[in-house]
Parts: sequence; structure tokens; C-alpha cells
Amino acid sequence: MHVLVIGAAGMIGRKLVERFAAGKEILGGEIRRLSLVDVVETPMPPALSDITRAFAIDISETGNAAKLAGLRPDIIFHLAAIVSGEAEADFDKGYRINLDGTRALFDAIRLEGLKEPYRPRLVFASSIAVFGAPFPEKIGDEFFTTPLTSYGTQKAISELLLSDYSRRGFFDGIGIRLPTICVRPGRPNKAASGFFSNILREPLVGEEAVLPVDEDVRHWFASPRAAVDFFIHAATLDLDRVGARRNLTMPGLSALVGEEIEALRRVAGERAVRLIRREPDPLIRQIVAGWPTDFDARRAEGLGFRAEKSFDEIIRIHIDDELGGTITHGG
Amino acid sequence: MHVLVIGAAGMIGRKLVERFAAGKEILGGEIRRLSLVDVVETPMPPALSDITRAFAIDISETGNAAKLAGLRPDIIFHLAAIVSGEAEADFDKGYRINLDGTRALFDAIRLEGLKEPYRPRLVFASSIAVFGAPFPEKIGDEFFTTPLTSYGTQKAISELLLSDYSRRGFFDGIGIRLPTICVRPGRPNKAASGFFSNILREPLVGEEAVLPVDEDVRHWFASPRAAVDFFIHAATLDLDRVGARRNLTMPGLSALVGEEIEALRRVAGERAVRLIRREPDPLIRQIVAGWPTDFDARRAEGLGFRAEKSFDEIIRIHIDDELGGTITHGG
Repeated sequence: MHVLVIGAAGMIGRKLVERFAAGKEILGGEIRRLSLVDVVETPMPPALSDITRAFAIDISETGNAAKLAGLRPDIIFHLAAIVSGEAEADFDKGYRINLDGTRALFDAIRLEGLKEPYRPRLVFASSIAVFGAPFPEKIGDEFFTTPLTSYGTQKAISELLLSDYSRRGFFDGIGIRLPTICVRPGRPNKAASGFFSNILREPLVGEEAVLPVDEDVRHWFASPRAAVDFFIHAATLDLDRVGARRNLTMPGLSALVGEEIEALRRVAGERAVRLIRREPDPLIRQIVAGWPTDFDARRAEGLGFRAEKSFDEIIRIHIDDELGGTITHGG
Repeated sequence: MHVLVIGAAGMIGRKLVERFAAGKEILGGEIRRLSLVDVVETPMPPALSDITRAFAIDISETGNAAKLAGLRPDIIFHLAAIVSGEAEADFDKGYRINLDGTRALFDAIRLEGLKEPYRPRLVFASSIAVFGAPFPEKIGDEFFTTPLTSYGTQKAISELLLSDYSRRGFFDGIGIRLPTICVRPGRPNKAASGFFSNILREPLVGEEAVLPVDEDVRHWFASPRAAVDFFIHAATLDLDRVGARRNLTMPGLSALVGEEIEALRRVAGERAVRLIRREPDPLIRQIVAGWPTDFDARRAEGLGFRAEKSFDEIIRIHIDDELGGTITHGG
């Protein structure tokens, strides 16, 4: 089996590749070849170096998507994207990468299939940004996609293309709308959503973190481990069970910032909680007020997708996967 | 005021231009210039010939959309499209005209605005084909768009682009999802939906028409006159009232084929009804079974859009607008 990961140097892309390295049979057959694509250099997984080839290319540039489709991978994970803030700030770049890049990939697969029959599985990383306020209390599986960002628009368009190309038989596609990933590893960044992770990740290693919103802010979360699980499950799921509606809101945990903090207290103690510094930021408050807070993801749940049920679980996964299983700064 | 109509040679496009010819003040200001675009030759409206210029061009071809945006029209009606059947049969052509053509137009307007501030009103002809079965009994204003045709996909994508470009301030757009237009003037055609019009139009002039489905088939209709009203209203409506969700299902009449026939009997008598020949066609039955049957269009109704309330009205409009106000073959 030949597996292609586009956006392999991103946070989820790396973790997905790590999962392959831990078990070559994870996709229901032996991974005999792995192609990793990103615009930046992709770290090579040591355990898979003999079967891996990395490409530092931009799929929106002419010829690149055709080159990748020409490799005829069996499973394609498409995670490459310009993030929300940048797609809003740079209109041309956002549309070029997130829409034209995706369409170039889809079309290259279609044209490859015209040469000789070819119908790979394609798993697309979509986002809850396809939805736009005002929202119902829980966003159901049949709620319309009226994004309020260019990023959300590009993801919603990609979802429509994915469904039509799948219906036509050009590939067997599935789009998965990821919740906000928490705890995001790495250093604090400037994303408006960064604080959801910062207020857990930093105190767990004895560092201060800033909370710019009130504790009654509610949002929708899943761990990086759950996200990787979603991709693996989407790649191996019988898509006849999914039918024509190929884009699914993934399960998640709807929780308050206050519940995050209570979970931190239970897992790491009062000392960790005291490292959260409250610094209200009106701009971030306003941005976050427009975000969805809860979903009814029963379709995905019925198809076997699973996420965490508590923030305690999410924190423990972070400790296991990023901190070697123990914390030294709690208490 | 300068008005641009793209797709001006089509059925609705022509009727829209006829309406302008009947009253130059119809868009809330005097039409001083009219630009008509279609891939085929557009008939010149005699009453407006001194202010009208026609262009036989394809907006998806490089440079054409920029040329039109360079004229800086105040109101743009975009009705140009490859129809559903052809977009399904010719994948490349459908995407080229219905998606790339629309995007080229939207982007040309954006780029024109970068030269010198420019923000026209743009009215886009969308379709109920953005929805795909299975449907609720009535399709509400917040139901998701999961099209089951490439045409519906292209329209749904165009709607998303329209919303994002409007949100960004590149133009002031509104997308209107037209019901099935009935009675469609002209000769019977091979469209699967043709019979809805054929069984009224042909008997009204003493000709036979074929009914390929049962009388209990339900569908969603508006007259050509109502469709023109929708476009005029959309061009003059205060879009602040519409908000961020710029694509609206237009009002219509949900009716059974049997109700069409009863209305024909009331308006034109038994002799007309006897001209309907029942010839069940399993393929057309199957296609039609996947179509929506009823909508809750309360958003558009609240904004002042109006359609017919009975098939008697729809038939009388056809008699007024196409048959000079009287029928000679009824009774």
C-alpha cells in the first residue's frame, strides 16, 4: 500500500506519520511506500526511512499535483492549508493554496484516472470554520455551511468538490471537520484560539499562561491523538456506509474554559492553576464570541468516530504523548 | 445607471431585458446604459437600442470578465450557466462555465475595485439544485447544501464565493435560488423537467403533450414573471436587511402534477386536459423522485419576495404574457 500525506510537516501530519511508524498495518494493509509532501522540509520518520520519500513542493503550482497523482498512491491524506488568520489577511494566497491547491489535487487524480482506471481513498482535513454564526445551541449534521471567513469558505468549497468528485467516481473521498485541537503541542502562538491550549500546556511545565477571555466561554475540542484517530478511521471506513454526504463533523468535547481549569486542578493541582494569569483581551473575546460552542455529531459517532469525553482525558493524553507520561511541576 | 446582464439571451435574461424596456425606472433610477452578454447573439431590445450594447463572449475566457468589470456597471445580473443536463454530461464544460466563469467575473470585479473603489450590486441566479436528497418534508432556510449533480455543486460553490466576496466588500451580492420555472415558453425540450410545462403549454394551443410521471408527483414552481420580479427585487433590496447569509431560496408554489391538471381544466376546459397523453417513463420517474418537493422560504418572503399562490395564476400569467391574453383552443 502506498500512502501519500500532503501537509505532512504540520502538527497533525507529523503525528499521523508517527502513528504509521508505530504500526505499518494500521491502515488495514502493510504500508510499503510513503510519500510526504509539504511546502517546507518534512522530517523523515526514522523507522520508515527506507520506504519514505519527501517532496518539498506547493501543490497549487502547475504540474505538482499531476506529479503526485502520477505516483498513484492508494490512500491520500490532504491536510495542507493556509491557516485561518493568514487566509483572511492574504486573500490571494488563501484562495490559491486552500482552493486552487485542493482543486488541482482533485483534478490531477481525475485526469490520472482517465489514463488508466484509478480511484484512491482521499481523506480531506476540513474544519468547523465551514459554519458561521448565528448558530443553534447544538449544530446538527444538517445545518448549513455559511462561513464567515475566507478560510471557512475555501474549506466549504473543497467539501463540495470532494462530494462531487466522489459521486463521479474519480476518487473515494471523505471530509472530516476537526474540532479545535487541544492540547496543541509546541510554543504559544498568536492564533486567537491559542489560549485554549496555552492555559493547560504552559502550567503543566511550570510556565505562566495568559487567559484573555472569561471562564464561561464554551468551545469544541478534541486531542491531537483523537484527530489522528479520525484520519486513520476515515481512511479505512467502508464509505458505502457514509453515502453521498461525504463531509462529517467529527465528535468532540463541548466544554467551558472553567471546566478546562477544573480539570487542570484535578490532574496537576492548585499550583498549576495559579500559573494562569487573567488578562482580558476585548479583541480575542469578540473573535471567540463568533465561534461555535457545541455540535451534535451523531452521524460521525454512528460511523465509529470517537473523541474524548472529559478534559481530564485530554490533559492526560497530552502528558502521555508530549511529557513522557509524568508532570514535574504540579502539586 | 449602467446595468449589465450576463446570460441575456436565455429565457429569463430576455424577459428581464423586456421588463427594462417597459420601464427604465424599474431599478430605482433611470437605466442610462445597458450591456448585454451571452455566448450567442443577444436580441437587441428595440425600445432601448440607443443605450444598449451587446457582447457575444464567454466570460470564462481570459480577459472577458476583466473587460466587463472595466465597464464598471452599477448593477450586474449574472444568469449565464450551462444547464444541469449538459453540466452532468460534460464535466469540463460545466466546471469551466458555471464555476470558473463565475469566479472569473467575481475576481474581475475585485481587481477592478483595487484600481479605483468599485462595489456594484451583483444578483446571481442560483438554483434549488444546491439541495440533494434525502430531504425533509419542507426544506427550510437553514438546510444544508449537499447537491447530487455537478450543476448543483457549481451553483453551491458560486453561492459560497458570492458570500465571501460580499463580506469582503468587493461587491454587494445576493444569490437567488429559483424554483422550477413554469410555464416555460417555447417548444418542448428534452430536459427531464420539461413535462411540467409541456402539459400546460401545449394543450393551451391545442397540441398534445406527454406526461411521463404519475399525478401524485409534487414539485416547486414559479412563473417566468415571478422570476423576473425576483431579480428586480434582489437588485433594489436593502442588503443590510439580508445580512451575511446572502443566498436565499425564493418563494414558490408546491403543487402536484394532478393540481396542475385541475387548474388547466378550470382555466381551459376538459378539451385541453384530454390533450395530455399518459406515457409513463421509468427513467424520468426515477430522476424526478430525487427532486425537492416543498420549501419553507420564509426568509425570502420576509424580505418581500413573492411568487404565485395557485396554478390557476401561473396558467393565466402564461396566457397573458405568451398568448396575448386569450386562448382559442380551450373549451
